[in-house]
Amino acid sequence: MPKTIILLADSSIELMPLKLTNNEIIKKYAKKRGKQPSTVILDSSYHHKAMSKLPESKKRGRPDILHFCLQNLIGSPLIRSNPESIEIYVHTINNEILEINPETRLPKNYNRFIGLMEQVFSKKVIKTNEKTLIEMLENPSIEELIVDIPKENRLIFSSKGSLIKLPEYFIDYAKKDLVLIIGAFPHSYFSENILRLSNKILSIYPQSIEAWVVLNRIIFSREITIL
Amino acid sequence: MPKTIILLADSSIELMPLKLTNNEIIKKYAKKRGKQPSTVILDSSYHHKAMSKLPESKKRGRPDILHFCLQNLIGSPLIRSNPESIEIYVHTINNEILEINPETRLPKNYNRFIGLMEQVFSKKVIKTNEKTLIEMLENPSIEELIVDIPKENRLIFSSKGSLIKLPEYFIDYAKKDLVLIIGAFPHSYFSENILRLSNKILSIYPQSIEAWVVLNRIIFSREITIL
Repeated sequence: MPKTIILLADSSIELMPLKLTNNEIIKKYAKKRGKQPSTVILDSSYHHKAMSKLPESKKRGRPDILHFCLQNLIGSPLIRSNPESIEIYVHTINNEILEINPETRLPKNYNRFIGLMEQVFSKKVIKTNEKTLIEMLENPSIEELIVDIPKENRLIFSSKGSLIKLPEYFIDYAKKDLVLIIGAFPHSYFSENILRLSNKILSIYPQSIEAWVVLNRIIFSREITIL
Repeated sequence: MPKTIILLADSSIELMPLKLTNNEIIKKYAKKRGKQPSTVILDSSYHHKAMSKLPESKKRGRPDILHFCLQNLIGSPLIRSNPESIEIYVHTINNEILEINPETRLPKNYNRFIGLMEQVFSKKVIKTNEKTLIEMLENPSIEELIVDIPKENRLIFSSKGSLIKLPEYFIDYAKKDLVLIIGAFPHSYFSENILRLSNKILSIYPQSIEAWVVLNRIIFSREITIL
């Protein structure tokens, strides 16, 4: 079975930026959760007002997008029945990279998911006795992670790309290893770090649609063309 | 364009059952949220211990399943580009029925979604100036809502059903109105109220998979066979 690498790119998840840790609303939010302001994850649902001064604020503070994407991904038959053929990377807006073991069962409850991500950012690794479930990679280079996959088999999905038809488009890739790159951010566009990975930018629908809807369709299409 | 009625069945969402409203953990949880115990939604993430005494406890307290299903549904191109051909009903484990306007933008943040659902259960209707977004139907009868669609065009999805292949299976229904019935509960099986709606029970994968993964695949398959 060919390999499938899923890269959630520029994911809108980060620890509270230093310049907001003295903000009164943020301090109150952290205190209510029994945490230090610097150890909580930025979330526009609660920090909207404080965030407005941040650069690129519209692209930030939406960890719910990552939560939806990972739930849809990890519950899909492609991943569940063939975890050994899958690699999952979460690239963040600050260029961190998390590797997620495809057999990890992530919390379905949003607040628990946020708590887990806060642990990942502080401890850098989440393990059980036997396996590493989530790990923040040191000195990460995306290029190194996907170096074995030629550029033409790395597909970036964006509403601004060339329109393709699913599931048919994946038939030609049925025997090839693939990197599937989906932006896990709400507005704006991919960073240069991502755009240099590939020249193939594809759209599955003429308008902008949510990251997890794109992801579901890509995974399903990949699955029915290789299984 | 043919009509598509989506029925999320036996959805695991309900107000706090009366017999738990005096439980100390529940009272504390409600107080922390500034609400009365009887007005909060049962959630196994927080009420797990108190819930264990309830009948059918394994089927209850999972409003996150409905949240994932509705986010995937409302973000999908089928619904976004043709809301007039879509009806969405949420049937609950207590036989309430909510009608959701396909053009409603539901909160992506889980805690806000729960807050909105608590409003729906207390006020029975959520409106803007111009339209009704969510409404709890009075004297609901599912049969009446779907009476125009013949029994053979009502499809119930369950891992225990006859295995079909998507998207091909939907080709025969490309010009027909359809009712798609997906269980939005974590364990156990459909209630009799749902099972009597149709004899067609279909499985899209030989093992049990999450409700929203099933829903995504069905909606995508319906879409590519009718659009």
